[in-house]
Amino acid sequence: MGFEALPDKPAIPADNRMSAAKVELGKQLYFDPRLSVDGTVSCNSCHNVIASGTDNRPVSVGVAGQKGGRSAPTVWNAAFLSVQFWDGRAASLEDQAKGPILNHVEMGIPSAEEAVNRIRSIPGYVEQFAVVFGGKKSVTYDNIAKAIAAYERTLLTPNSQFDRYLKGDKKALSEQAKRGMKLVEQVGCTACHNGPNFAGPAMPVGTGFYQKFPTFENNEYVKKYNLMADTGRHEATKNEADQHMWRVPTWRNVTLTAPYFHNGSVETLEEAVRVMAQTQLGKTLTDKEVGDIVSFLDSLTGKLPKQVLPQLPLTPNRTLTEK
Amino acid sequence: MGFEALPDKPAIPADNRMSAAKVELGKQLYFDPRLSVDGTVSCNSCHNVIASGTDNRPVSVGVAGQKGGRSAPTVWNAAFLSVQFWDGRAASLEDQAKGPILNHVEMGIPSAEEAVNRIRSIPGYVEQFAVVFGGKKSVTYDNIAKAIAAYERTLLTPNSQFDRYLKGDKKALSEQAKRGMKLVEQVGCTACHNGPNFAGPAMPVGTGFYQKFPTFENNEYVKKYNLMADTGRHEATKNEADQHMWRVPTWRNVTLTAPYFHNGSVETLEEAVRVMAQTQLGKTLTDKEVGDIVSFLDSLTGKLPKQVLPQLPLTPNRTLTEK
Repeated sequence: MGFEALPDKPAIPADNRMSAAKVELGKQLYFDPRLSVDGTVSCNSCHNVIASGTDNRPVSVGVAGQKGGRSAPTVWNAAFLSVQFWDGRAASLEDQAKGPILNHVEMGIPSAEEAVNRIRSIPGYVEQFAVVFGGKKSVTYDNIAKAIAAYERTLLTPNSQFDRYLKGDKKALSEQAKRGMKLVEQVGCTACHNGPNFAGPAMPVGTGFYQKFPTFENNEYVKKYNLMADTGRHEATKNEADQHMWRVPTWRNVTLTAPYFHNGSVETLEEAVRVMAQTQLGKTLTDKEVGDIVSFLDSLTGKLPKQVLPQLPLTPNRTLTEK
Repeated sequence: MGFEALPDKPAIPADNRMSAAKVELGKQLYFDPRLSVDGTVSCNSCHNVIASGTDNRPVSVGVAGQKGGRSAPTVWNAAFLSVQFWDGRAASLEDQAKGPILNHVEMGIPSAEEAVNRIRSIPGYVEQFAVVFGGKKSVTYDNIAKAIAAYERTLLTPNSQFDRYLKGDKKALSEQAKRGMKLVEQVGCTACHNGPNFAGPAMPVGTGFYQKFPTFENNEYVKKYNLMADTGRHEATKNEADQHMWRVPTWRNVTLTAPYFHNGSVETLEEAVRVMAQTQLGKTLTDKEVGDIVSFLDSLTGKLPKQVLPQLPLTPNRTLTEK
């Protein structure tokens, strides 16, 4: 059995060491809707840490009610992924954090300069950046991203039933979950969904583990759920070899993150399991097999950490966001 | 001097007693975006307790990017108000909580039944309602509102500089703030902005303290800030006597809640003070007077309580909200 428990800590980049003050600053930024142009969307709006780390929507809703093109991946345990976004176009959490703030359908700040200017105009942030990063000119877009990434590296969900089982508590898994655990190997799911995050083998940061999805195109699901419309990593690289290639998504907490797939087209985990067996392995599972696998996937839900809300530094007597 | 400190506790309705479990349940509901039709808006989206208790926008943004008609009042100390909403159309926090959930431009749930059905389909909520309200059929729209109101009665901001001053710490107020404190009486602001919340005298719950705004219509501000377009309480009652009548809003934490007025048309507190002196009292203040009054208003910012985020009860393997 090649299963791996969730590590206690993610790798920490040499140029973004952790500190309590940095994590606290990053948490404030993560929850701050002023990082969106009109003050309505924060990182937490779509990656909701009081719930599944997602918004449980097919695709997210950004400023002015605009819908994004893909379903928001969970922020839980994202620190263990070697690349970010569905198509792996960000090499790190730091890189990822810079995307949505400037994306016009997500948070919609017109430029990095404008994001920096807005944060610089909040005295409570300027003080904290000086303490965390040093110097009066430490409010930079890179440092905004570093603080957010540092906070995200604390968003881990240890102690799932599965992890307790792996560490020796043989009663932590139900009999059904144990059957599911065998099945995911027998059926072939773990050919891709392996490693501590069930998102592929450990890879150097910035190196993604990609697979073609769907692999088998001639089945009812591909059309029904419109699985070919988005060409995946190809949309980022324009490389023909990347057509319909996707980062293998994590299984951890997957029971909480409905709806499923890059386009959020599948509403239940049972159906997602059926779709994957058919599109990736050419197999049709029985209802019992599906139930057993879902039971195993349920056992991968970890302990979601309690979050103490930050109080955001405010700007007396004025507002900063656009109407 | 007729100033009053913020009371320690608000009045608790006989039919909605406080309990730790009820407050915790209410907090979960307050933060739960599943109380909006598409899962994008929670109570906290517009009444943000990690910031000013508002969204610091002219008017709020609800589901699908729709804009509301009035600026979101702060939730901080709303428990001390005898009526809710700008026009006082809700007699209690319980009544108020029922409004936005069903308002089609705010949270957009089509009916109270649908809101109840959605909460009933979340086992973690059903268990808590049974504990808090008793019985298996305790998930009702009334009880949803009661739990939210109970949580809101904990959202108080004690210990402002002003309150410390009133309680004997004569150094708690700056000299400028003390000048401002005298001015608000001399100029006449406290004719309406009096009582512990500076929102009028204590009144029986459900009884509002209303004033006409603007009183003086012939000045530059009324046109510039479009202060007559909304007829205020008249829009709720259709009573001619209620034309341009508004609940007197609180001064507490006002420095944090820009932009100002029912339509959020005024961006700074300095300008808001000038507008009020002109439109309500027919007076033109000097810049020094404005500065002194703002300094006093700044002293009314209390200690915003730290919030431990709830973890929301989730629904394994499926999602509940509309696309």
